[in-house]
Amino acid sequence: MTVPPPFTDLVRRLPSSVPFRAPEAIERARGRRFAARLGANESAFGPSPRAVAAMRESAASGQRYGDPESLALRQALGERLGAAPERIAVAGGIDELLGLFVRLFVAEGTPVVTSKGAYPTFAYHVTGFGGRLVPVPYKGDHEDLDGLLDAARRSGAPLVYLSNPDNPMGSWHGGDRVRAFAAALPPGTVLLLDEAYAEFAPEDALPDLDGLPRVVRLRTFSKAHGLAGLRIGYAVADPALVAALDKVRLHFGVGRVAQAGALASLDDPDHLAAVRAAVAAGRAAYVGLAAGLGLRALPSATNFVAIDMGGDGDRARAVLKALEDRNVFVRMPGVAPLDRCIRVTVGLPGERAVFAEALTRVVRG
Amino acid sequence: MTVPPPFTDLVRRLPSSVPFRAPEAIERARGRRFAARLGANESAFGPSPRAVAAMRESAASGQRYGDPESLALRQALGERLGAAPERIAVAGGIDELLGLFVRLFVAEGTPVVTSKGAYPTFAYHVTGFGGRLVPVPYKGDHEDLDGLLDAARRSGAPLVYLSNPDNPMGSWHGGDRVRAFAAALPPGTVLLLDEAYAEFAPEDALPDLDGLPRVVRLRTFSKAHGLAGLRIGYAVADPALVAALDKVRLHFGVGRVAQAGALASLDDPDHLAAVRAAVAAGRAAYVGLAAGLGLRALPSATNFVAIDMGGDGDRARAVLKALEDRNVFVRMPGVAPLDRCIRVTVGLPGERAVFAEALTRVVRG
Repeated sequence: MTVPPPFTDLVRRLPSSVPFRAPEAIERARGRRFAARLGANESAFGPSPRAVAAMRESAASGQRYGDPESLALRQALGERLGAAPERIAVAGGIDELLGLFVRLFVAEGTPVVTSKGAYPTFAYHVTGFGGRLVPVPYKGDHEDLDGLLDAARRSGAPLVYLSNPDNPMGSWHGGDRVRAFAAALPPGTVLLLDEAYAEFAPEDALPDLDGLPRVVRLRTFSKAHGLAGLRIGYAVADPALVAALDKVRLHFGVGRVAQAGALASLDDPDHLAAVRAAVAAGRAAYVGLAAGLGLRALPSATNFVAIDMGGDGDRARAVLKALEDRNVFVRMPGVAPLDRCIRVTVGLPGERAVFAEALTRVVRG
Repeated sequence: MTVPPPFTDLVRRLPSSVPFRAPEAIERARGRRFAARLGANESAFGPSPRAVAAMRESAASGQRYGDPESLALRQALGERLGAAPERIAVAGGIDELLGLFVRLFVAEGTPVVTSKGAYPTFAYHVTGFGGRLVPVPYKGDHEDLDGLLDAARRSGAPLVYLSNPDNPMGSWHGGDRVRAFAAALPPGTVLLLDEAYAEFAPEDALPDLDGLPRVVRLRTFSKAHGLAGLRIGYAVADPALVAALDKVRLHFGVGRVAQAGALASLDDPDHLAAVRAAVAAGRAAYVGLAAGLGLRALPSATNFVAIDMGGDGDRARAVLKALEDRNVFVRMPGVAPLDRCIRVTVGLPGERAVFAEALTRVVRG
């Protein structure tokens, strides 16, 4: 008989569930492709043509490892953000950065504060390192800053997670409120501020973090920059936190082609502005669509919109399933009462038309 | 005063050293580019033109996440290897796979057996998860299978690492010996068999692993396939081990462009055969070069050659430095007595000529 694998006690206890089911996996299970892929908040408007050109050029020298210090990219980011490269860490997207920062601060039993229903991949990492989640319910459709602060104080958590703008609801807090929240956290407590959707948000939603050395700002090239398939994102933080990542990160983990694409994308502010405008127009279209069906679309500072289906989670799940049957891929929040909504990414006009027709039939059907 | 970051006790204890200094970092410190980049065992012969074409096409839809199950690639690999997709895991290169497998089996204080002077990134992961390295000296220029077996038995380590062909020496054991070694390990002990250089090795160096459910075969697209800059590799293992990775891996961590490149590269056996032949010719050229200088090049089953500089580590380090001054980047083993050698990657004929001239001047100078 085979002896069981010698997993650690922690690994043995970990659940086998995965944070997200991929559209490809759903397509395979259905045996049919989706006509509209509007569930993963990918940018319908693609990468910058400059980024595509840079990646195409870089692909031919794909045999070379990327610079493990990503220095050219960190310098370019630093210039734009007014931050020294020592304050910037590059890794394979916010997902990887979340895992790395969790690993820095979370041992078995460590309490970690997050919102109940927030980004599942963060919770996945916390659980994966044996941490104990201290979930704070949303307040309405917003992450509850007062509740998070209170939980941080009560639990003594070394780590707090906040996404602003928020995923999955699309809501946001003003930068001043976020700054005040961060400043009020117990000294030493690290705040992971997930700004994956920053580029879609109003300027005043992005806090000034000067003088707050325990806030880690997380940004990505996966959303507005349209480089999700390349795996690259960055953190802006105190040099002591950035330096600590060198103890645990995968030094050669960020690809050369990804670095070339990201660098070129930074050099194309016109594309970014066009994406931003197109996303704003798409959000407005979804708001109109929902209103026409007697539904409410929540205000959003992201590239997706949460649409309140006017019932409970079962109602929204039924809508999701019916949309899937009509070849439309969307997602929905995982917990009540957020799960009265479905979450739909701003697509191209054609994809939005497919979604609009499907939703109309489902709601009216 | 700022309160120190709330790092875990383990992170606090971790050294700040990194496994490798990148050629880019050395170039920046020197203020000059290398004329020959022959230290990272990258493929001088580049990716397959089919892979480049696939990546160029994929780059334009870089806004989409890759399939987190990498199913098309796993199926294609499975067909070639005669293994079901359930036995194959894809991740961001062997480096990432090593980290994931270490995380499955290593908690604080867990003993882990490896060879003294073997791949530093493996040791980095073990240390990073709090494991205790049990290093076994090489026997001559080979990893010592008897010594590793003995250490595994004595230490009760759940995890043993072996690279075959070996890095940094280029030596190899026959597949039958590796199989016998794996079969003799204590039941339950997991063997990570790093075959990064498998494609350059004689067929009979690659063991049949049938009926050995605790051996993890690690392969990469970074070497013979020339896709180091894309970050993609795979493990072939018992389905129970592959499934366990789902508890800890970064599900969306392997890029779409990388998957497209790897898949296309598998479909170009002619390119792979040409690379193999070119590498064999390059190795022979290095052997001839060394002989002409009164030095010995070690037999190699990889895309690099270790050249014995005929002295101790100080001698080889001096040669390395002198080569660097002549704009040639090579590396060398980290511990005695392996560090009497320098390790040079098979480059293009032009790069080899630069190296040959530099080495000749250094040795004769």
